[in-house]
Amino acid sequence: MLIVMNANATENQIERVCRQIKELGLSPHPTPGLERMAIPVTGKTESIDTVQIELLPGVMKVVRVGKPYKLVAREFQPEDTVINLNGTTIGGEQLVVMAGPCAVESRQQLLEIAHAVKEGGASVLRGGAFKPRSSPYSFQGLGERGLEILAEARQETGLLVVTETIDAENVSMVEQYADILQVGARNMQNFVLLKRLGQSRKPVLLKRGISATIEEFLQAAEYLLSEGNNRVILCERGVRTFNSYTRFTLDISTIPEVKRISHLPIIADPSHGTGRYRMVAPMARAAIAAGADGVIVEVHTHPGEALSDGSQSLTPENFRKLMFQIGKVGRAVERELAGEKESQEYHG
Amino acid sequence: MLIVMNANATENQIERVCRQIKELGLSPHPTPGLERMAIPVTGKTESIDTVQIELLPGVMKVVRVGKPYKLVAREFQPEDTVINLNGTTIGGEQLVVMAGPCAVESRQQLLEIAHAVKEGGASVLRGGAFKPRSSPYSFQGLGERGLEILAEARQETGLLVVTETIDAENVSMVEQYADILQVGARNMQNFVLLKRLGQSRKPVLLKRGISATIEEFLQAAEYLLSEGNNRVILCERGVRTFNSYTRFTLDISTIPEVKRISHLPIIADPSHGTGRYRMVAPMARAAIAAGADGVIVEVHTHPGEALSDGSQSLTPENFRKLMFQIGKVGRAVERELAGEKESQEYHG
Amino acid sequence: MLIVMNANATENQIERVCRQIKELGLSPHPTPGLERMAIPVTGKTESIDTVQIELLPGVMKVVRVGKPYKLVAREFQPEDTVINLNGTTIGGEQLVVMAGPCAVESRQQLLEIAHAVKEGGASVLRGGAFKPRSSPYSFQGLGERGLEILAEARQETGLLVVTETIDAENVSMVEQYADILQVGARNMQNFVLLKRLGQSRKPVLLKRGISATIEEFLQAAEYLLSEGNNRVILCERGVRTFNSYTRFTLDISTIPEVKRISHLPIIADPSHGTGRYRMVAPMARAAIAAGADGVIVEVHTHPGEALSDGSQSLTPENFRKLMFQIGKVGRAVERELAGEKESQEYHG
Amino acid sequence: MLIVMNANATENQIERVCRQIKELGLSPHPTPGLERMAIPVTGKTESIDTVQIELLPGVMKVVRVGKPYKLVAREFQPEDTVINLNGTTIGGEQLVVMAGPCAVESRQQLLEIAHAVKEGGASVLRGGAFKPRSSPYSFQGLGERGLEILAEARQETGLLVVTETIDAENVSMVEQYADILQVGARNMQNFVLLKRLGQSRKPVLLKRGISATIEEFLQAAEYLLSEGNNRVILCERGVRTFNSYTRFTLDISTIPEVKRISHLPIIADPSHGTGRYRMVAPMARAAIAAGADGVIVEVHTHPGEALSDGSQSLTPENFRKLMFQIGKVGRAVERELAGEKESQEYHG
Repeated sequence: MLIVMNANATENQIERVCRQIKELGLSPHPTPGLERMAIPVTGKTESIDTVQIELLPGVMKVVRVGKPYKLVAREFQPEDTVINLNGTTIGGEQLVVMAGPCAVESRQQLLEIAHAVKEGGASVLRGGAFKPRSSPYSFQGLGERGLEILAEARQETGLLVVTETIDAENVSMVEQYADILQVGARNMQNFVLLKRLGQSRKPVLLKRGISATIEEFLQAAEYLLSEGNNRVILCERGVRTFNSYTRFTLDISTIPEVKRISHLPIIADPSHGTGRYRMVAPMARAAIAAGADGVIVEVHTHPGEALSDGSQSLTPENFRKLMFQIGKVGRAVERELAGEKESQEYHG
Repeated sequence: MLIVMNANATENQIERVCRQIKELGLSPHPTPGLERMAIPVTGKTESIDTVQIELLPGVMKVVRVGKPYKLVAREFQPEDTVINLNGTTIGGEQLVVMAGPCAVESRQQLLEIAHAVKEGGASVLRGGAFKPRSSPYSFQGLGERGLEILAEARQETGLLVVTETIDAENVSMVEQYADILQVGARNMQNFVLLKRLGQSRKPVLLKRGISATIEEFLQAAEYLLSEGNNRVILCERGVRTFNSYTRFTLDISTIPEVKRISHLPIIADPSHGTGRYRMVAPMARAAIAAGADGVIVEVHTHPGEALSDGSQSLTPENFRKLMFQIGKVGRAVERELAGEKESQEYHG
Repeated sequence: MLIVMNANATENQIERVCRQIKELGLSPHPTPGLERMAIPVTGKTESIDTVQIELLPGVMKVVRVGKPYKLVAREFQPEDTVINLNGTTIGGEQLVVMAGPCAVESRQQLLEIAHAVKEGGASVLRGGAFKPRSSPYSFQGLGERGLEILAEARQETGLLVVTETIDAENVSMVEQYADILQVGARNMQNFVLLKRLGQSRKPVLLKRGISATIEEFLQAAEYLLSEGNNRVILCERGVRTFNSYTRFTLDISTIPEVKRISHLPIIADPSHGTGRYRMVAPMARAAIAAGADGVIVEVHTHPGEALSDGSQSLTPENFRKLMFQIGKVGRAVERELAGEKESQEYHG
Repeated sequence: MLIVMNANATENQIERVCRQIKELGLSPHPTPGLERMAIPVTGKTESIDTVQIELLPGVMKVVRVGKPYKLVAREFQPEDTVINLNGTTIGGEQLVVMAGPCAVESRQQLLEIAHAVKEGGASVLRGGAFKPRSSPYSFQGLGERGLEILAEARQETGLLVVTETIDAENVSMVEQYADILQVGARNMQNFVLLKRLGQSRKPVLLKRGISATIEEFLQAAEYLLSEGNNRVILCERGVRTFNSYTRFTLDISTIPEVKRISHLPIIADPSHGTGRYRMVAPMARAAIAAGADGVIVEVHTHPGEALSDGSQSLTPENFRKLMFQIGKVGRAVERELAGEKESQEYHG
């Protein structure tokens, strides 16, 4: 931590700041400059509220130097976290693809899509049973019935299941059905929920809040690790900017940055991150090229409806193309799709 | 709702869109233009997911025209909502001032501040017993003990108490102690919490999320009203922008906009909205001048500590100055501080 | 400047950083901490490119402490700059109101509006003769003919004239007609233009770029002062955020912040800053309440057209109401409208 | 264009809006809905200022449907623009790499880097002779001497030269030395400069402004094409967001979006777009994977200085690695580096 004093700060004010720092159990190191005094502070500064120091007379600003998290940092664990779920690994050499509908709408819909994404090469099935919706009048999900359908799809296809949990109280129910528990962007700072999930034995997929800094994102993950759950998968899903041609701006640069400062795996969600189906494929490729450990995408199959052949939607056919592209870009950055090596060996 | 077709959309594609619209129970009104076909749609379009229409071949974009909320809109209730709590009114002619510490730290601290803000002219005491904190290692509040202290302060001073509730499950506890239940910015889209608070008989102070649009803000309020609680106070508390000289950018223009489209009262939080004590007074004045129904501010008294006389902090003395300024600006826009008329009559 | 080393930086790396700092003519002050070494640097650090230091092995980050401008800072000139133009003062006790159309469209239009705003109480007439427009197909202004019309309006009304200059080469022409030379938001970092205006003897109204930080804003002003022109009026005109209910987000908090760190006057432009006529009055009041030295607003009079009585537009009638409101809020913060004292004396 | 009326708009107000629309030479098509009247408007709506319509009594909002540009749109020219410069093509199958220092500092520095990037495989040399700098006290470039050095480097290496022009008046000078004229982000809306460059016979590299929408970006390009210069290369170089871990947020999604709506080539600048050397390689890969036609990167060689071996900087060695990675990712998306086919044939 560094305290910068005003150019006209008095001796008295400087002394007072130093005294206060010492009372907080820290060590001030006043360093005169040409224009102004700077006071580096050493000690356990993580717990200090910098605003309180900024209130002291003569203080210009307080700069935090250390990181506000520990367990998620590479300093704490240099090697990558690799999560192994029945042979599917997340965070290692393999790329993981999670795919499925936004919401579980019916047994038929989900099973159909589950089979399609399984054939396409996905290893995890996504689908919401509890949907946080901006409007109270929108469909809020099938609830436990949706979870049962997801479990049936897992049984039938062998896919792992990831689904959202929206409240501390309903975690126990979701845990019974899902392989990975998802925290949506809106709940990234629902700390009661995070603490509860930190006590779960299931891995957690933590989506970045739409205006969360990387620090806040990693601090949210720190809540999970600090409660004992270190199987956390981060997910970049777009941030809110002035751009209006996409729903959100998928912040690809988060991926190499998180990889650098944390050992946790990170995937990207180009479907929600852009809100435009035509951008799912290019942005999925970009995420993989930047070092993501996988992607989570929405796939639709509505053969009985007019919507089904929308040329821009990610139909099973387009999903297979996407998997092919991901595979190619992945190999260009020395990663391979889950199941790829195996199938190559199989064919070999 | 308006559907805009691509310039080269075929007859077939236009027909298909119209058919789909009719299947959804709505009426399409195709209107040829010089360059492209536009299809205004009438009917109950609130429930339609525009993304699904955008998937249809030939569609360029879908523009929503109606509002995605009802009960909070002026169309539904033209006159202002005025909330009356033991004679203090919020949303009427009076300006309400809520003041107190960020968190309840101890009985002594809170009572001291409570008396100070009471003398300064506040009508509501603020103070957090449950604190949502970015870091799991930060102080998370005194919990129920904090609520007891708040209740004691109310008893002693006659101030109303507003305090935060952070999870659906703990609402019942907070309801026993508080007069107004606060939803923090991070929980603005914690819909499980909102539904629970919608069933409460206590008024709710709903803070705007740090990147919430006005639509999302009002939809969050709609959750409360749609469950039966129409005593909702909105609060602008700053949005996240590229600015770094303040913690957030207090979006003053929200105030006249919300006043125009909703009947609900709205106040401003210049303390959190700027994160700079030196800006609390000018931004509080600005909010009142723009039409806010009041402000919520942080006040500190730490007489035993070096921090106490920080020239920029909102000490009781500075709070009294702030109240004086708010009173003057309020009168310039034909509003008066709660208790002012009374005291004028008293003095008269 | 403070250099923060990585937790695992070697002795060698620290020595190298210190050597490099010395070669740049500065003094390093290495300060060991519990976790990592910090190196405060003293000397003329303004000219250092921090990125170059960040490249050195072992460096975690470099934090700038000093301000990247001098002449515009309060440290350089503690007292407020007051610009006096034929008796109208900007930056002192008086509030200035600049009003007029967006663009000069015709002689009749401008003279009509000029008389209207004069009667309403404005002291400066605004109107663009050169219009920077996003589209090459939009009206780009009347050019020199527009300037002539502005000069005629000044002659007739006694109002001062402010108008935009969009290129270094055309400054000389604009100087012949205008009293105040305006730099639009898009040109805030057109440094060739700024340098030319720094050599002018006319005051400059410098608008903030739509995504300029306060540092960049003040550095742009520094260009003007460093070339010799210290009669600079800053103008907050809205920044680009995710908000879409206004065209820009008028950043009211800039006003007290600029007042604190600079001696230059600052006004607000609620017309462009919101893009919504219905918000001009509340945001003008907010700016004045926050400490602005005045406002610049658009006023329309089109008596021959259907547009003329648009209830939301700032017609001469609404402008008079606005002036009345500004006067009241101004007095609440101990400011008065230009000409007010005089007229009070006159009536007295 | 679509005009949406207020729910309570009167017959009279609707008639008036329609009359006004007709006076503007357009056709209104009033369409009653369940709740409110919508008025689609057909005709040449590009030139209409929607704000003027929004002023009419009873109007809720005006929605623009058409695109505000023509020549840059795919509707105008379906096939990709391919710019051929002495055999190097930009916008076709080949990927172009532009590389070099930020600024030309000396003859020795530039020649050294020019040879290094030539050997690494770049086809265009970048380097600024005129530098727009936030601070008036920063190095502003060598001016014409810098241009001479660039021309010498071209002579020696055969590389094409791209360099920035910062003012309409100095375009003629830059044209004499450079192969491609660059418009920096700060000048994206310097329309006087754009018009002058539109009359040049040299191709223009147009960087996106740091808060420009895609519409504004393409409108700026439209200025160039409308003056007759259709050899325009767009460049995504990061936008300003709340993120602070990078200087800007490189908006990768712009690439597929621009490719979809325009025929112009687009490249990415991961150096300025992130401001972090460690992110140049992953973000360059991401841009290529998303469909960019190339990248422009900064390369440093300072063998005599301590800065030279900064492990994170893009040294010639790291540049070669980057070229290798770009080549691999390029092939994964069916693109190849300029010169690659040739060299493969050569080696074959």
